[in-house]
Amino acid sequence: MRLRNKPWAPDKLASYPQYISNNPQELKGKWQTRFEKKQDIFIEIGSGKGQFIVGMAEKYPDFNFIAIELQTSVIVSILEKQIDKKLPNLQLINGHGGDLLDFFAPGEISRIYLNFSDPWPKTRHTKRRLTSPDFLELYRNILPDDGEIHFKTDNMGLFEYSLASLSQFGYVFRQVWLDLHQSNFTDNIETEYEQKFSAKGQTIYRLEAYWPNNKTQH
Amino acid sequence: MRLRNKPWAPDKLASYPQYISNNPQELKGKWQTRFEKKQDIFIEIGSGKGQFIVGMAEKYPDFNFIAIELQTSVIVSILEKQIDKKLPNLQLINGHGGDLLDFFAPGEISRIYLNFSDPWPKTRHTKRRLTSPDFLELYRNILPDDGEIHFKTDNMGLFEYSLASLSQFGYVFRQVWLDLHQSNFTDNIETEYEQKFSAKGQTIYRLEAYWPNNKTQH
Repeated sequence: MRLRNKPWAPDKLASYPQYISNNPQELKGKWQTRFEKKQDIFIEIGSGKGQFIVGMAEKYPDFNFIAIELQTSVIVSILEKQIDKKLPNLQLINGHGGDLLDFFAPGEISRIYLNFSDPWPKTRHTKRRLTSPDFLELYRNILPDDGEIHFKTDNMGLFEYSLASLSQFGYVFRQVWLDLHQSNFTDNIETEYEQKFSAKGQTIYRLEAYWPNNKTQH
Repeated sequence: MRLRNKPWAPDKLASYPQYISNNPQELKGKWQTRFEKKQDIFIEIGSGKGQFIVGMAEKYPDFNFIAIELQTSVIVSILEKQIDKKLPNLQLINGHGGDLLDFFAPGEISRIYLNFSDPWPKTRHTKRRLTSPDFLELYRNILPDDGEIHFKTDNMGLFEYSLASLSQFGYVFRQVWLDLHQSNFTDNIETEYEQKFSAKGQTIYRLEAYWPNNKTQH
């Protein structure tokens, strides 16, 4: 994503602590206190400008959502949407996916969304992919048994890699879509990126994986 | 495949018992005696006219191969190839994939190839798909731990189904190809069907799955 410099962004983020905590680490294990209702928490890692997570929070009021986005000048766009909508089931974290264990207690998160993550196509960058074993280990730590990972991408190589990586780690696929936009999946909420690239005819891949609760863990 | 009636086929099959046993059930647990060398046995279920399995047996003399094909008038084409080539590591079975337990002892087979199996797209025919749970259970019985399933298809729906079905049964993906013919997989041997349809630009999907030997079995 091309970043537009927004020098005012940090101040703006700091002005809405009810939506985006200045110390998300302090909320570890206590995220339910930040929501109107106590219900399953779903997070998105790399939320961009938030079209997906805001759309999800609107569509599914019976789940709580947390948007995680590293770029200050990008997450401010999610904050602006939330200032407008005031969704009681949406919180924001300005942070890095690699720091999940600082933000969340074991089992605190029921589902993780990964949408159009950076493919990092070079082999030497494998460890940076959000579906590489080190990240899967982080996810495993914050998800309960039966916890889920939902992943969308337009990058075929990343999707091939992720199918093998998740499977070898021990996740099980509930369903796989090899052409999401031509499928009968009607609950799709598009990200900004997805909207742009699928309009150009790019194939979108999707999977839902869960951690089986009846097997020996790694 | 359109079948040409070949009334002479049964007689021909009966004339080459060294390549195609009249009683494959009697060889259960004893297949190594049918090959020149004792080495891992790989089978293909639904071999058609045999371009794949004959090509594999030629290319990989250090493995033994068994072609399984139900249609008498089709398997006779494999026999004709074998009469010509006399490969010491190729045997034929004129039988049904559903009868695997009659043909093979537990752990006798190291790898199963499924190539362009009938997609059976209707939901009520799910059980006929060669990657449905009942078939996976048969395969599990004749494969050892670490035994492998290699599957190719041009049918996106069948491939999506198979990724979920294999995963939920307990198989793990070593690698997945979402466009085999555009990939760096150089060891591909095409089936007759594959050759025809990939020439028309049809995408070919492929996966290699194995049974993990360090987990609780289903």
